[in-house]
Amino acid sequence: MTETVVRSETIAWYQRMVDAALPDLLDELLADTPDAAAEPIRYAVLAPGKRIRPLLLMAAFKATGGRPENAAGVACSVELVHAYSLVHDDLPCMDDDVLRRGRPTLHVQFGVPAAVLAGAAMMPLAVRAVGLAGRDMGLPEERVANLVARLTAAAGGRGMVGGQLLDLRAEGQDVAPDELERIHEGKTAMLIAAAAAMGAIAAGASQEDVDRLERFGMRLGLAFQAIDDILDLRGTTDELGKESGRDALLRKATYPGVHGLRDAERLSRELVRAAEAELEGLPDAQDLRGIADWILSRRH
Amino acid sequence: MTETVVRSETIAWYQRMVDAALPDLLDELLADTPDAAAEPIRYAVLAPGKRIRPLLLMAAFKATGGRPENAAGVACSVELVHAYSLVHDDLPCMDDDVLRRGRPTLHVQFGVPAAVLAGAAMMPLAVRAVGLAGRDMGLPEERVANLVARLTAAAGGRGMVGGQLLDLRAEGQDVAPDELERIHEGKTAMLIAAAAAMGAIAAGASQEDVDRLERFGMRLGLAFQAIDDILDLRGTTDELGKESGRDALLRKATYPGVHGLRDAERLSRELVRAAEAELEGLPDAQDLRGIADWILSRRH
Repeated sequence: MTETVVRSETIAWYQRMVDAALPDLLDELLADTPDAAAEPIRYAVLAPGKRIRPLLLMAAFKATGGRPENAAGVACSVELVHAYSLVHDDLPCMDDDVLRRGRPTLHVQFGVPAAVLAGAAMMPLAVRAVGLAGRDMGLPEERVANLVARLTAAAGGRGMVGGQLLDLRAEGQDVAPDELERIHEGKTAMLIAAAAAMGAIAAGASQEDVDRLERFGMRLGLAFQAIDDILDLRGTTDELGKESGRDALLRKATYPGVHGLRDAERLSRELVRAAEAELEGLPDAQDLRGIADWILSRRH
Repeated sequence: MTETVVRSETIAWYQRMVDAALPDLLDELLADTPDAAAEPIRYAVLAPGKRIRPLLLMAAFKATGGRPENAAGVACSVELVHAYSLVHDDLPCMDDDVLRRGRPTLHVQFGVPAAVLAGAAMMPLAVRAVGLAGRDMGLPEERVANLVARLTAAAGGRGMVGGQLLDLRAEGQDVAPDELERIHEGKTAMLIAAAAAMGAIAAGASQEDVDRLERFGMRLGLAFQAIDDILDLRGTTDELGKESGRDALLRKATYPGVHGLRDAERLSRELVRAAEAELEGLPDAQDLRGIADWILSRRH
C-alpha cells in the first residue's frame, strides 16, 4: 500500500466523521425550527463538500493530544460558518453563481430573500454548535468561551466579512501584493487559522501550540486561496462543480492576477512549506501534514 | 412633576447610557477592522434609535437586583442583533426600503453587497460583545455562556430568521391568527424576550425570575409588533422616519390585517397587561413597567 493510498483513506475517514456528525447536529440545532428556515439551512450545510476546515480542526485536535472523532461536533461549527459564507458569496449581488458543489445555489433553489436570511442564521447556529459540542465533550466553560471568541473573530469584520468587503472594493482595481494578502487573509485564511487553533484549544493545548497552529492555518489558508484562484483560472465547469473563469470575468483580486500564474503556483507551494514548518515539534501532526499536502495537490 | 415626566426622564437616562456605550463598544469590536467593513457597521448601529431592547435588558437587570448602568455593555449586544435584522429587512430583495430612522438605508448608502455582508457580520460582533461585557462585569463563564445561548437562539432559525422566513412565505396569503402569532413570536418577540431574560441572567436571578421575564418579554414583543403594524397602517412617512403603508402594499401578515384595526388595538393592550402581570412579585420592576407603558403609548 503506497503512502498516497494511506493518506487518502485517512482523509476519507475524517470526512465520514464530519458527514455523520453534521446531520445529527442540524437535527439538534433545528428542533422546532419552521421548515421555511430549516430546509434552506439543511440544503446549504449538507451539500457534498471536502470539509477542509473541520478536517483541519480535528487533525489539530489530534496533533495536540486529542482523539479526532471526539472533536467532530465542534469541527462542524466551522463548516456552518463556511457554508454561510458560500451562500452569501453566490448571491446575485455578489458573485452571482448559479451552481455550487454541482447543485443549484441556495438562492436559485429557495429564492434570494431565503438565501440572505438562512445564510445569516447559520452564524448564530454555529455559535450554538460550539456550546453543544462543549457540553458533549465536557469542556470547561472558559475553553468554550475561547472557542466562541475565535470563531466569531474569524467570521466578523476583521475576518471573513472584512476580507469579502475589501475584495468587493478591489474589483476592477489594480491591487498591490500586500493588499491582496490582506484580502485573502480575511476572506479565507482567518477561518482556516481559527479551525486549526480551535482544535488545539479544544484539546487544552498550551498557548504556544495554539499560536503555532494558528500560524500554520494562516499560511495554509493563503496557499489554499492561491490554489483556488489558480484552479478558477485553469479549471473547467465539470471539474469544479461550479462555473469557472468568473474571477477573471469580475476582475477580482487573485494570486495569478497579481503575481502571474507561474509565480502564484510557486508561492502556494512556499506557503504550504512554511505552514508545515510550524508543525515540527508537535507530537502527532502526521494527519495534519497529510491534509495540508492534500489541499495543495488537489487536481494538480 | 407629573408621573409622565418622571417616566420620560427615566427612559431618556437609560437611552443615554446605551448611546454612550455603543460607540465605545464598536471601537473595541472594530479595532483593526478595515474601513470597508467598519463604516457600514457603524452607520447601521449608531443610527438614532429608541433602543427598546437594550432598555428592557437593563431594566430587567435592575428588576432582579442589578444596577442598570452596569448592564449597558451586554445590552448593546441585543441592539447589534436588532440593527443587523433591520439592515437585511430593508434590502431590495426583502422590504426594499430606502429610508430607515430618517436616513438612507444601508444598501442605499453603501450598496447591496456591503449591506448583506456587514449585516451578517454584526451577528458575530454581538456574540463577541457579550463576551467583552461578561469580562468587564466579572461574570462567571457559565453565565456568559447562558447569555450567548439566549442571544443566538433568539437570532436563529427558530427565532428571528425563522419568523422572517415564515413572514415572507405568508406574503399575499390568508393567514390564520395562530400562524400570525408564530410569525411575530419569531420575527419580533423572541429577541425582546431574550433581552428581558438576559437582563435577569446577567444579574444572577433565579430560574423562576428568568422564565418570568422571558414570558414578560414575549408578550410585550407581540404587543410591540401589533402596535408597529397599526402604526404602519395609520402613520405618515414623516412621523415614522420610514416609508409608511408598505405592509399593505406587500400584503404582509399583520395584526390589523388578520384581526381588524380595532381588535388589533385591543389585543395589543391586553398583551401589555398580561406582560405587566408577570412583573408582580419582582422587587424593583418600576422602570420595566414604565418602559412597557412607553412602548404601548408611543404616538397614541
